[in-house]
Amino acid sequence: MEQITPQGKDFSQWYLDTLKVADVFDYTPVKGAMVIKPYGWKMWELFQKEMNTRMEEMGVENAVFPTLIPESFFKKEAEHVEGFAPELLTVTRVGKKELEEPYVLRPTSETIIYDSYARWIHSYRDLPLKMNQWANIFRWEMKTKPFLRTSEFFWQEGHTVHQTAEEAEAMVLEALDLYTNVFEEVFALKGIRGKKTPNETFAGALYTTTLEVLAKDGKAIQSCTSHNLAQNFSQAFGISFTDQNEEQKTPFITCWGTSTRALGTLFVAHGDDKGLKLPPKIAPIQVVIIPVIMKKEQETEIEESVLALEKELKDAGIRVKVDRRDLRPGNKFAEWDIASDSMMIARRDTSEKFSLERNNCVPAIFDLLEDIHQSLLRSSEEFLQKNTSEVFDFESFCEVLETRGGFIKVSWCGDSDLEKEIQEKTKATIRCIPFEDMERPKGKCFYTGKDAKEIVVFAKSY
Amino acid sequence: MEQITPQGKDFSQWYLDTLKVADVFDYTPVKGAMVIKPYGWKMWELFQKEMNTRMEEMGVENAVFPTLIPESFFKKEAEHVEGFAPELLTVTRVGKKELEEPYVLRPTSETIIYDSYARWIHSYRDLPLKMNQWANIFRWEMKTKPFLRTSEFFWQEGHTVHQTAEEAEAMVLEALDLYTNVFEEVFALKGIRGKKTPNETFAGALYTTTLEVLAKDGKAIQSCTSHNLAQNFSQAFGISFTDQNEEQKTPFITCWGTSTRALGTLFVAHGDDKGLKLPPKIAPIQVVIIPVIMKKEQETEIEESVLALEKELKDAGIRVKVDRRDLRPGNKFAEWDIASDSMMIARRDTSEKFSLERNNCVPAIFDLLEDIHQSLLRSSEEFLQKNTSEVFDFESFCEVLETRGGFIKVSWCGDSDLEKEIQEKTKATIRCIPFEDMERPKGKCFYTGKDAKEIVVFAKSY
Repeated sequence: MEQITPQGKDFSQWYLDTLKVADVFDYTPVKGAMVIKPYGWKMWELFQKEMNTRMEEMGVENAVFPTLIPESFFKKEAEHVEGFAPELLTVTRVGKKELEEPYVLRPTSETIIYDSYARWIHSYRDLPLKMNQWANIFRWEMKTKPFLRTSEFFWQEGHTVHQTAEEAEAMVLEALDLYTNVFEEVFALKGIRGKKTPNETFAGALYTTTLEVLAKDGKAIQSCTSHNLAQNFSQAFGISFTDQNEEQKTPFITCWGTSTRALGTLFVAHGDDKGLKLPPKIAPIQVVIIPVIMKKEQETEIEESVLALEKELKDAGIRVKVDRRDLRPGNKFAEWDIASDSMMIARRDTSEKFSLERNNCVPAIFDLLEDIHQSLLRSSEEFLQKNTSEVFDFESFCEVLETRGGFIKVSWCGDSDLEKEIQEKTKATIRCIPFEDMERPKGKCFYTGKDAKEIVVFAKSY
Repeated sequence: MEQITPQGKDFSQWYLDTLKVADVFDYTPVKGAMVIKPYGWKMWELFQKEMNTRMEEMGVENAVFPTLIPESFFKKEAEHVEGFAPELLTVTRVGKKELEEPYVLRPTSETIIYDSYARWIHSYRDLPLKMNQWANIFRWEMKTKPFLRTSEFFWQEGHTVHQTAEEAEAMVLEALDLYTNVFEEVFALKGIRGKKTPNETFAGALYTTTLEVLAKDGKAIQSCTSHNLAQNFSQAFGISFTDQNEEQKTPFITCWGTSTRALGTLFVAHGDDKGLKLPPKIAPIQVVIIPVIMKKEQETEIEESVLALEKELKDAGIRVKVDRRDLRPGNKFAEWDIASDSMMIARRDTSEKFSLERNNCVPAIFDLLEDIHQSLLRSSEEFLQKNTSEVFDFESFCEVLETRGGFIKVSWCGDSDLEKEIQEKTKATIRCIPFEDMERPKGKCFYTGKDAKEIVVFAKSY
């Protein structure tokens, strides 16, 4: 068995070792791009299915738009192009011929989608318009890490158009709720929800909301974002509609996305020194059956039992694999006891081992899978609580940051320049202005001592 | 209601009108690329699901590989680069910086996938290796048509590696069977299966097999291909393995794909003057419920019945939509009769109308959907038979081609230059060397009068 570096020794190395042992990705000759291997891609497919079911209930329909975007399009929203320019991969040639107008590979699809929306939206009857696209996205990043930051990655991007600012605001939160629910119900992960500061707002948005999750090393990950684009892109792309009173109006747009980074989040938030720890809903294999053959004469009998059990679990919709690798039983996790018609169960999450009746075992296994989910979710909640500190001065802030890491809540004056100054000094950034603290008294800024404008959460991040 | 040009008047216009009315696509500012709108994309998702289920049974696993391919990679297989060079979109810039080595956008993924395979395959224990990728593909085509030929399209590409030539040959046919079955069981379409002539063989393959389907205008469509790459790419990419006798061997590769073109095939092979005609398995909406309110006082009662029926069908897994548009009943397809507790059914495929008992209607509707599938499949089979001719001289060939179109079977000498000559004269190409005629006596070549090498099928094609 390949060795996994312990998390406490070198978390980055633990991450790479773990992904290698789990066989979820491989490097490629394309800078920063990875192959997502079957065991990793299956998780993405399971995630897509969960998302699609929920989006359908929200009235969101899937469509696809071109990958290539005319370079000029990208310049229509001024802040937007500035935010993305250095990372844009640009197609300038076809065969040996130079293109008259270069195309960029989408780093996000607002511009190409809203160009279509402008043709589709005429009347209030066309609204709300809610579409989602599953797509590959291209951003030429300098520092990359499998799943967490790659030059090509996969995501979904929802783009909705509304008559009123209020509807758009509600949609931004509905999308954030979608992510919060999926992270909780599928990934068994809890995080902190809030608004981004202007420094961290999406290029072209009025405001950005996020769900920030903690990795086991105490660093934060932005697991998804949901943006209120207000009328910025509607104006830039000439989207307008006639309202109920025959008046010409400019609609309000939201967009929201999460990516293969969500899988990276899952890996770093649940993994331990044994490697990946996957919640059952996203695990490509939920149950591994390991036949243990102690005496040669039992082989046929055991094999028959194994096949029957495999079929029973599969028919019940459980993702099951039989591991017939010829290892010493000591290396395996469970034991068969044909005589007593029971089996040994080993839980990946708690390492508990116990015996289970073979007869009518399916409901017990479903209960077990649900219990594993709940137990992982509780761990996540506890980890989040334990690793969220509150401090009141910069000295304590630096101390917590260096010793414990995690989320650090502070009262904050709201000054963007000072936010950058703190980042330069400490590498920590404001992850969000948490919704949960919005109603609290704000107190004095931990950095300037002035009256605070808001409570924010700082962390070092991926 | 928008007008659809009759097929007999202008088939190309019929196609575009039909797709517009069905709302499956839209044009974009990117040359030859389309938006696939929700009603079209849903069909692709249903197709993916059907394919994934079958591929899983075949032991094929999904993965993803980079979209960008280093330009140099593409030159490793000489025929391969020659086949694709003029259509290659090339990324030369990132932001304002020129790339040291340009990347091409994949026009197919052999080179980038086999580069990974070379790292993954060491021993016979690693074989067979069977992976599939769902991907967007880029080919800068001069003449484009929605779904049938676009500069960006979607496909699946299966890539398998085998120890022996025999295994690879069997795999090529297994993949062709997969397509044949899906086309029959999901799309209700029959076609002709066979081998391509060298002129039409995939760039870099030993041979190519295909399933050729007829459009309603008598033109052929290559609906899928399955290629035997033999050892060409293994050698070019340095893929080798140690066999059971510790000897170093070069493996045999197959690849096979079908694309969003399959949906285009479906549209042109089943559609009629009323527009799209979708087999139930691929129809995003299988049943439309149209409440017909003749008297105002029935409104509530009817609405309740409609909601109950909708729920009953949905719970049974039927894709259902209630059409509440306020049209004159004459414009609608079915009628409610609350009093007699029955409903009017209108079949899209046969235009038949008949009454159905409301009580316990779900099994009857399932039967109906199955019957529609079978009826469409029979139509397809009959259309194929009626539009496949056999001729013995060039004069008859030209006459059939001009008057009836369709598939034309002939005995053929096998001369590639003459094949091109016939194409220049008549625009018809050899679609395939049908498997069904391989055992027949070959006779004399219809063009040269020489001893024929094989029986082939010609047609004009998309």
